[in-house]
Amino acid sequence: MPLHNRQYRLAARPVGLPQRSDWTFTEAEVPEPADGEVLVRVLYVSLDPAMRGWMNDAKSYMPPVTLGEVMRAGGVGRVVASRHPQFPVGAHVSGWFGVQEYAIARKGLQRIDPALAPLPTFLGALGMPGMTAYFGLLDVGKPRPGETVVVSGAAGAVGALVGQIAKIHGCRVVGIAGGAAKCAYLVDELGFDAAIDYKHERVSERLAQLCPAGIDVYFDNVGGDILDAALARLALHARVVICGAISQYNSRTGVRGPANYLSLLVNRASMTGMLVMDYADRYAEGAAAMGGWLAAGRLKAREDIVVGLDNFPEALVMLFQGTNNGKLVLEIAPA
Amino acid sequence: MPLHNRQYRLAARPVGLPQRSDWTFTEAEVPEPADGEVLVRVLYVSLDPAMRGWMNDAKSYMPPVTLGEVMRAGGVGRVVASRHPQFPVGAHVSGWFGVQEYAIARKGLQRIDPALAPLPTFLGALGMPGMTAYFGLLDVGKPRPGETVVVSGAAGAVGALVGQIAKIHGCRVVGIAGGAAKCAYLVDELGFDAAIDYKHERVSERLAQLCPAGIDVYFDNVGGDILDAALARLALHARVVICGAISQYNSRTGVRGPANYLSLLVNRASMTGMLVMDYADRYAEGAAAMGGWLAAGRLKAREDIVVGLDNFPEALVMLFQGTNNGKLVLEIAPA
Repeated sequence: MPLHNRQYRLAARPVGLPQRSDWTFTEAEVPEPADGEVLVRVLYVSLDPAMRGWMNDAKSYMPPVTLGEVMRAGGVGRVVASRHPQFPVGAHVSGWFGVQEYAIARKGLQRIDPALAPLPTFLGALGMPGMTAYFGLLDVGKPRPGETVVVSGAAGAVGALVGQIAKIHGCRVVGIAGGAAKCAYLVDELGFDAAIDYKHERVSERLAQLCPAGIDVYFDNVGGDILDAALARLALHARVVICGAISQYNSRTGVRGPANYLSLLVNRASMTGMLVMDYADRYAEGAAAMGGWLAAGRLKAREDIVVGLDNFPEALVMLFQGTNNGKLVLEIAPA
Repeated sequence: MPLHNRQYRLAARPVGLPQRSDWTFTEAEVPEPADGEVLVRVLYVSLDPAMRGWMNDAKSYMPPVTLGEVMRAGGVGRVVASRHPQFPVGAHVSGWFGVQEYAIARKGLQRIDPALAPLPTFLGALGMPGMTAYFGLLDVGKPRPGETVVVSGAAGAVGALVGQIAKIHGCRVVGIAGGAAKCAYLVDELGFDAAIDYKHERVSERLAQLCPAGIDVYFDNVGGDILDAALARLALHARVVICGAISQYNSRTGVRGPANYLSLLVNRASMTGMLVMDYADRYAEGAAAMGGWLAAGRLKAREDIVVGLDNFPEALVMLFQGTNNGKLVLEIAPA
């Protein structure tokens, strides 16, 4: 030190898909940690659909990122300077580090053990997507063995885990994803019972074929037409888990509500929103289960790693274009 | 006997509001009950928003009424001929008698005691609307004392009971209804804490004023804009009960979904559909509670009685125009 810290800051609130012009790429001095703080060299940044929501100036479960602020993001890194006894220099940590090379952190840090899994996995199966899938499916969806579970965004970070956890719990699992390659991956690699390619198949018809007795648990990551198609096929007392709505986040005309919501009445079904942060005091439980399944080979984690901080704007858009394969991670520096 | 039985039969599937031309008014011989059956002189017919749904040729929780069939409806009446030992001549009963003067019934009959309450009340507070309000609010909405409960269609058969039950349970209650007179009735007569006149006030603004800490339980009978306004004001962990969607039943452009459904995610809230039939084995519990509150003067029942079978087509439409005051009942013959 003094080193330079390169950062992406929010320059404008996007309309529709975020563009490079919505960001400023800045350089700043790397700060010194104060008492109780650590300085983290960020190694991997998590790219998540939820980031799009934080870019809007709208009240939500978190305040929006303010204009000029370093973009909020989860990440993993290595402590390079420390004034916090629990996080010595050299320790690996995860936390809210933002889209930058160095971050000062004081709270929300989690120590991680790189011997357990590759670092990017701590942003996927062992990180927020893993906890989201684990608690969202099991606590909110409450699947019972033999039930039919349908998940959208099924090749994404959360969806791929939801389907695999449902299989481990003895359910029949149908994934909805975009493109034949993703669908083949779900069935051939992850063991889903079936997959629907929403880009080339009629989702309603395929759900009717594949779920003749209806859908018991629908885990929704996408909203829009696919949510409506699933609602139309609910079984009696079905549970719909609302985890995200990626099809709607870049809408220029506002969110479209599910026209088939009265299927909840007809089928005495429920639709419940979930946020992973509510389960913070149970992350150890979730991580132990996910880690055990990973170690036993019962669960496969896949990360799609884009190399280079510079590529952040284009990498983020991959999520909304569906061009990522698995959990999308930006590599800032190799581990 | 032979007497004549006048009946309303479904002649056409309505587009939009049902019209007189959607019905045929027929006369038939009054049939004789077979073994295990009773012949009921229908005294009062229940008019309910759900009837509009049964007129569509669509899969739902009940089969549609077929063209040419006597219109399905609940009712109360007196047994005039019986070959069923539990229901002797002279007994008062409720059941699915249809829109006609005489009905043969074999199952689904409930004996009712006219000493307990006026007969129309067995179609309201002590009938399906009462059970819907009781189980929908308490079992699905799960209100806790001190919480804020909002109910739409609040001057209707179900809504007025929901609000009163919520008050009995120690909640703050805001009703949404159409017109100043209905709103005054809710506050002055039924003890609601506040009422919003959706025809003359901005529902979103009024909800923000009246529910500064958000809505804990929203009991929806209407759908549409009012559902969206309520979703936008949910408190953390709110419960939305979907009981009906009267604003959408006559839509010529299909049901509009709630654009603000992602408030379920932001607030980790749930939206659950309910149908009263699921609680059939607990009606005795509900009726005992409702009867006790009625007797104690803690609950007020109000029926709006239209006299004369001939008036059925116009009376039914009153529900969708909101011109009824309280539970709408068609009187076929005086008790």
